[in-house]
Amino acid sequence: MSLDNATRDKLKTVSTATIATALFKRGFRNQMIQGAGPLRPGKPTMVGEAFTLRYMPAREDRNPVSVFLNRAHPQRKAIEECPPGAVFVVDSRKDPRAASAGSILVTRLQARGVAGIVTDGGFRDAAEIAALDMPSFHVRPSAPTNLTVHEAIDINVPIGCGDAPVFPGDVIVGDDDGCIVIPAHLAKEIADEAVEMTAFEDFVTEKVKEGWSILGLYPATEEKTKVEFAAWRKAKNR
Amino acid sequence: MSLDNATRDKLKTVSTATIATALFKRGFRNQMIQGAGPLRPGKPTMVGEAFTLRYMPAREDRNPVSVFLNRAHPQRKAIEECPPGAVFVVDSRKDPRAASAGSILVTRLQARGVAGIVTDGGFRDAAEIAALDMPSFHVRPSAPTNLTVHEAIDINVPIGCGDAPVFPGDVIVGDDDGCIVIPAHLAKEIADEAVEMTAFEDFVTEKVKEGWSILGLYPATEEKTKVEFAAWRKAKNR
Amino acid sequence: MSLDNATRDKLKTVSTATIATALFKRGFRNQMIQGAGPLRPGKPTMVGEAFTLRYMPAREDRNPVSVFLNRAHPQRKAIEECPPGAVFVVDSRKDPRAASAGSILVTRLQARGVAGIVTDGGFRDAAEIAALDMPSFHVRPSAPTNLTVHEAIDINVPIGCGDAPVFPGDVIVGDDDGCIVIPAHLAKEIADEAVEMTAFEDFVTEKVKEGWSILGLYPATEEKTKVEFAAWRKAKNR
Amino acid sequence: MSLDNATRDKLKTVSTATIATALFKRGFRNQMIQGAGPLRPGKPTMVGEAFTLRYMPAREDRNPVSVFLNRAHPQRKAIEECPPGAVFVVDSRKDPRAASAGSILVTRLQARGVAGIVTDGGFRDAAEIAALDMPSFHVRPSAPTNLTVHEAIDINVPIGCGDAPVFPGDVIVGDDDGCIVIPAHLAKEIADEAVEMTAFEDFVTEKVKEGWSILGLYPATEEKTKVEFAAWRKAKNR
Amino acid sequence: MSLDNATRDKLKTVSTATIATALFKRGFRNQMIQGAGPLRPGKPTMVGEAFTLRYMPAREDRNPVSVFLNRAHPQRKAIEECPPGAVFVVDSRKDPRAASAGSILVTRLQARGVAGIVTDGGFRDAAEIAALDMPSFHVRPSAPTNLTVHEAIDINVPIGCGDAPVFPGDVIVGDDDGCIVIPAHLAKEIADEAVEMTAFEDFVTEKVKEGWSILGLYPATEEKTKVEFAAWRKAKNR
Amino acid sequence: MSLDNATRDKLKTVSTATIATALFKRGFRNQMIQGAGPLRPGKPTMVGEAFTLRYMPAREDRNPVSVFLNRAHPQRKAIEECPPGAVFVVDSRKDPRAASAGSILVTRLQARGVAGIVTDGGFRDAAEIAALDMPSFHVRPSAPTNLTVHEAIDINVPIGCGDAPVFPGDVIVGDDDGCIVIPAHLAKEIADEAVEMTAFEDFVTEKVKEGWSILGLYPATEEKTKVEFAAWRKAKNR
Repeated sequence: MSLDNATRDKLKTVSTATIATALFKRGFRNQMIQGAGPLRPGKPTMVGEAFTLRYMPAREDRNPVSVFLNRAHPQRKAIEECPPGAVFVVDSRKDPRAASAGSILVTRLQARGVAGIVTDGGFRDAAEIAALDMPSFHVRPSAPTNLTVHEAIDINVPIGCGDAPVFPGDVIVGDDDGCIVIPAHLAKEIADEAVEMTAFEDFVTEKVKEGWSILGLYPATEEKTKVEFAAWRKAKNR
Repeated sequence: MSLDNATRDKLKTVSTATIATALFKRGFRNQMIQGAGPLRPGKPTMVGEAFTLRYMPAREDRNPVSVFLNRAHPQRKAIEECPPGAVFVVDSRKDPRAASAGSILVTRLQARGVAGIVTDGGFRDAAEIAALDMPSFHVRPSAPTNLTVHEAIDINVPIGCGDAPVFPGDVIVGDDDGCIVIPAHLAKEIADEAVEMTAFEDFVTEKVKEGWSILGLYPATEEKTKVEFAAWRKAKNR
Repeated sequence: MSLDNATRDKLKTVSTATIATALFKRGFRNQMIQGAGPLRPGKPTMVGEAFTLRYMPAREDRNPVSVFLNRAHPQRKAIEECPPGAVFVVDSRKDPRAASAGSILVTRLQARGVAGIVTDGGFRDAAEIAALDMPSFHVRPSAPTNLTVHEAIDINVPIGCGDAPVFPGDVIVGDDDGCIVIPAHLAKEIADEAVEMTAFEDFVTEKVKEGWSILGLYPATEEKTKVEFAAWRKAKNR
Repeated sequence: MSLDNATRDKLKTVSTATIATALFKRGFRNQMIQGAGPLRPGKPTMVGEAFTLRYMPAREDRNPVSVFLNRAHPQRKAIEECPPGAVFVVDSRKDPRAASAGSILVTRLQARGVAGIVTDGGFRDAAEIAALDMPSFHVRPSAPTNLTVHEAIDINVPIGCGDAPVFPGDVIVGDDDGCIVIPAHLAKEIADEAVEMTAFEDFVTEKVKEGWSILGLYPATEEKTKVEFAAWRKAKNR
Repeated sequence: MSLDNATRDKLKTVSTATIATALFKRGFRNQMIQGAGPLRPGKPTMVGEAFTLRYMPAREDRNPVSVFLNRAHPQRKAIEECPPGAVFVVDSRKDPRAASAGSILVTRLQARGVAGIVTDGGFRDAAEIAALDMPSFHVRPSAPTNLTVHEAIDINVPIGCGDAPVFPGDVIVGDDDGCIVIPAHLAKEIADEAVEMTAFEDFVTEKVKEGWSILGLYPATEEKTKVEFAAWRKAKNR
Repeated sequence: MSLDNATRDKLKTVSTATIATALFKRGFRNQMIQGAGPLRPGKPTMVGEAFTLRYMPAREDRNPVSVFLNRAHPQRKAIEECPPGAVFVVDSRKDPRAASAGSILVTRLQARGVAGIVTDGGFRDAAEIAALDMPSFHVRPSAPTNLTVHEAIDINVPIGCGDAPVFPGDVIVGDDDGCIVIPAHLAKEIADEAVEMTAFEDFVTEKVKEGWSILGLYPATEEKTKVEFAAWRKAKNR
C-alpha cells in the first residue's frame, strides 16, 4: 500500500503547487490533471489512492438506460467497489458533453467513505455534489446522462485524466488549484519534502507581508534568510 | 401554445439532469445547450418557451454604434417583443469574444416579465446581470459591444445554441447544470415523467444517505426497493 | 506618463464594457484581454499602466529550479521592478498548463503597491491570491511551476495578452467582465467620454427599472429622454 | 445584380490575397472564410454571387433519411434553385463531423452551371468532388450524412461561413488560399483596384526574381521603381 | 469471426459515406473516426477487423528509450501480434504532438499482411508510410517518438479512436473520406445494403451527369426513376 | 557560429524523426514546431540557423497599409537582414487567420540565399510559395494581409513557434514531418548521432522489408542483428 496514514496526514497539509514543484525536481512535468477544478472551492485538501474508471465513447445500441438493470455494470460496480479512503478518478476523455456521474452516485461514494472524486469531464446535479462534504473536481457541470457519450468499460486500470497518467494506487491530492497525481512509489518522499517546502514558503509569505524583497529571500540565497528561517522554525515548532 | 401553467409549474420542480434522461429515453441526445452556465448559481429554475435571436458575424460597414438609432434594429426590437414568460435564446455562434447583450437590455427583459435569457456567447456587465432576479446563462463575461463581432439578423427563427437545436416555442429549462431544450410537442409528457422520476430520485438520495447500496436501489431492481418507495410516496404525499 | 491621477480616478468609476464601446467608436476592436477573468469577483476596479513580462516556451536544460538562485532572473527581476500603481501584465501565450506566478510573488507585488496583475495563463495558489486585496485576473488555476512550460525572457516589451496588443504604458482597466487595454495616448479622452457615458447608462438603468421601453431611451432618440436626462444630471449633480 | 461580366472576368485574374488587401484598405478585416481550403488545388479561380444555405443542429426526430422524400426539403430545393454562375455557400457552423453535401448533389450543381461551392464543414465523397471541374472548398472530408448533425433550415438568407459574414449576392472569390467575400456593392471597385494591384505585384515578383531588394520596390517608395513599372506596363500592355 | 471473405470483398467496393448512411438508418451516429485522413489518398479501400492498441499519457520515469529493449513492450508486441488481414487501430487520445508509430513499425505491419493502420494521433516518417501499398490514416505528421507523450498500455481492448467506439473485431473500412467502424455483428448486413445502395448511387450519378434533376431521382420518388434503374441494373448486370 | 558545413551536410541526410529521438534521449521533449507542415512535400531537407521574427497582435491605428512605406518596418527589415543559409522563423502566436508573409517576400528570401521559412501561422499566395525551390512550412494558407492580425515587433529575439522554444542561432531542420529545433550547442553532436542512427534505421528497414520481425532487430537486442548490421555497414560503406 502506497499511502500510510502519516503520509496521508502530511499531504493534507501541503498544496498541489508545492507537490508539483517537488515532482518537477524529479523530472515529472505532466502529473497535474489539467482543466479540472473544484465544484466548491475551500474544502479540505483531498488525499487518497487512485481507484479508476475508464469510459470509452458510447455506441447507441449498447447504451440504453436499461443497462443499469445489470448490477455488474462497470459504472455501478466501480462505485460500490472503490475502497474507503481512495479517490475515484474517471477518464472521460476530456469530454464534458455528458455527465461522468450524478449526485446519487457521488453521495454513495461519500457514504462509503471515499476520499473524493475527479473527472476530466463534468458532473450532473453539480450543485448537490458541491454541497457534499466530500471534495469533487470536474471541468464543468453537464446534465446529460453519461450514456449519451460515455460507456464505462474498465475498472481500476491505468488511465489518462486531464492529460495526466494515472495508475491505480497513485496518490491523488486535490485543492483549489486542482488535482495532482503522485506516483505511488514517491508518495512518502514527496510528502516529506513538501512539508519542508511548505514550512519555508509559510516563512517567506510572512516576510513578504512584512515588506521583504523576494531577492535573497525566495530562494534563500542570503545568509540572513537562512538564519531567520532557522529561528522561525524553532519559534513555530515546525 | 406548448407550455400550459401546469406544465410550467412541474418543470420548475425538476432538474435539467432528469429532463435530459427523459429526453434520452426518447432518442434525443443533443438538447443540452453545451457550455453555457448560470451567471449566478442558486436561482430558481428557469422555465419558458424559446423566443430566439440569431446573430451572424458582423461586417464593419454595417455595424457602427449608430445602428441603434434605428428603433427597428433586430436586437432592440427582439428585446421589446419577447413575450412575458418566454426565455430569450441567443445564437452567438459559440463566440464569446463580444457581448451578446448587456445589463440594460437584460434588465429590460426582466422588467417585461421575461423568464430568463441564455446565450452561447457572453454577457457584458455580467455582475449586474447576475444580481438580477431573472436567471441568465452564458459562457463567460465579455465586455466588448456585440457590434464588434455580432450582427443581429433574425428574430424568432430556428437556431443553434451551444450545439443544440432550438425552435421558437420549444421549452427551455435552466438550472445550475445549464439549459436544456424540450421540443414543444413533448413538453407536457416530459414534465409528467420528470416529476415521477424526481420523486424516485429523492427517495433514492434519502436511502443512499442512510447507507443503502445503489445496487438494487437505483434502478429499483429489488422488490424491497419498490415496496419502500411506495410507502415513501404515500408518507410524503408525492 | 500616460496616466495622471484624475484619469486614474475617473477610470475607477467606469466599466470595461463602457470603455470597450468608447474604443470601438475610435476603431479599436481587439483591446479586450480575451479569456482572463477575476480570481475573485467584486473587488474595486483595477487601473494602472501596463508593465509587461513575456514568457516563451520553456526548454528543459535552461529551466531547472536552480535558475531562481540568479537574482537577475527576469521573472523575479520584473516583480521587483514593476512600478507602484502599475498593472503587471504577463504574456503566457494563452497556455494555462503551468502557473504564470504564485501567491508569494503576487503578494510581493501587492506589498510593493502594484495596482494588479493579469495573465492569459493561470496562477498557482489561486485561493491565496484571490484573498489578497489587490485585483488579479487569469484563465484558470494552475498548480505546476512556471518552469514547466514557461521561460521568462523579456521585461516591459510590447506583448500579446489574451489576443490583445499590450504596449508598456498602456492603461489596463479590470473589473468583473475582465481586462481591457487603453492605448496610452487615448487614456484621458477615453476616461472623459466613459464618465459621460456612465452617467447616461446609470440614468437609463434607472428608467428601465421604472418600466421604460428601451426604444427612444437607449440610445436617446426621443426628445423626452434628453430632457429627463438633463434634469436627472442636475438633480444627481453628475 | 452585383456581378456584371466584366467584373467577373477581372476577378478571375486576381488572387484572394490581393482582394483581401483591397478590402482591408476599406476597413474590412473579416471577409475571409476561415479554415476552408480547396478540395483540389490548382483549379481556375472561382467567382460568383453567393447563394446560401443555412444548417442548424439536427434534432433526431426531424431528421430521418426519409426527409428527402419531400421534394421541398431545403437542402435539395437549394441545389435545384441555385442560379447558374452563383457560388453555393453553406453555413455548417464550422462543424465538419458530418457532411455538408456529397458528390451527387455537387455534381448536380456543376451540371446546372453553378460556379462553385464552399462550406465551413466537410464534404463526403471528397475524392469524387475534387475530381469535378467545378471548384469546391471545405474544412476536411466527412463521410457521415448531413442528417447526423445538420438540418437544412433556410435558403438564401444572410449567414456566417468560417466566421465571415455572407449576404446573398455578395461576390465569392476562391483560389488555393481559400475563399473571400466581397460585399456586393464593392465588387466592381474591388475588381478594378485588384487588377491594378496585380499588375504591380507581377512586376515586383519579376524584379525580386531578378535580385532587387524589396526596400524601395514594394511598396514603390523609390522613383526608379515607379519609372520602371511604367515602362513595364507599357511593354506588357497591362 | 465477423468478417468472412465475401463481406470483405463487398466492403472493398463501397464507400465510407454509403456505409455511414446504412449505419445511420440503424441508429448509429458516431461510428466515423473523426479527424483522421489518409496519408496518401487514392489507395484501394481498406477493410479489416479492428486490432487495437491503447495509449495513455506517458510518465517520464516509465518511458525512456530503453523500454524497447523489452520484447514484451506492448507497442512492439502488438505490432507482431496483429493478425494478417486486420486493421491496426490506435487510441492516441486525439493527441498528435508525438508519433503513434513510425515507418519501421508500419512497414513491419505491411510485411505481416495487415490490412492497414489508423490512429487519431500522427505518424512520424509520414512520407515513407504514405509510400507503402498498405493504407494508413492519421491526423497529421508528427516526428517526436511516441514515448514523448504516449505509453502503450493495453492490447486489443475496447477503445475510443477519433471519438468513435472501437471494439476488437469491429470492421474498419477506410477510404479517402476517412475510416468508419462497423459493429462486428452488423458487418454482413451493412455490406449487403451498401452494395445495393452503391448500385443506385452509381446510377444516379450517371443520370445527374446526363442532366437529370435530383428531384424525383434521389431519392427515387418518381416511378420513372425506378423503371430506369431496374433497366440500368439489368444492363449493367448489377 | 553553431552550424559548420559538415554539420549542415550531415543534418541534410537525416530525418526530423531521428533528430527528435536524439533530442529526447537528452531530455528535450518540446523541440518540434507543432502544427506546421510543408507547403509542398518532397523537397530536400531544410537546414539552417534560426533567424527570428516576432509578431504581436495588431492594433488598428498602428497598422494601416502605409506602414510599409517605412523601410525600417521590422517585417521588411527582417526579410532583408536574414543571413543566407539561415532559416526564417516566424512567431505568429499559432494564429493563421492572417498571413505571416506572401510570395513576394518569400521569393526575396530565396533570392537572398535563405535556407527556408517556417511560421506557426499561414502564408498567402501559398501556391506560389509552394512552387519555389526553397522549403516552406506553415499551418494552412491564409490570404489576409498580416496587418489584419499581426504586427512585426522584434527581429532575432528568442520566440515560441508552434509551442517550441526558438533561440536565434538554434538549428532548424525541416522535412515532410515538419520542423524541429536543435539547441545551438548540440547541433554537432545531434548531427553525428543522427547519422549513426540513420544508418541503423536504414538497415532495419531493409531487414523488415525482407520479413524480419522487429523483436530482437529494433532495437538490436539480438547478437545476430549486431553482426549483420556490422556487415551491412561495411558493405554499404556507411
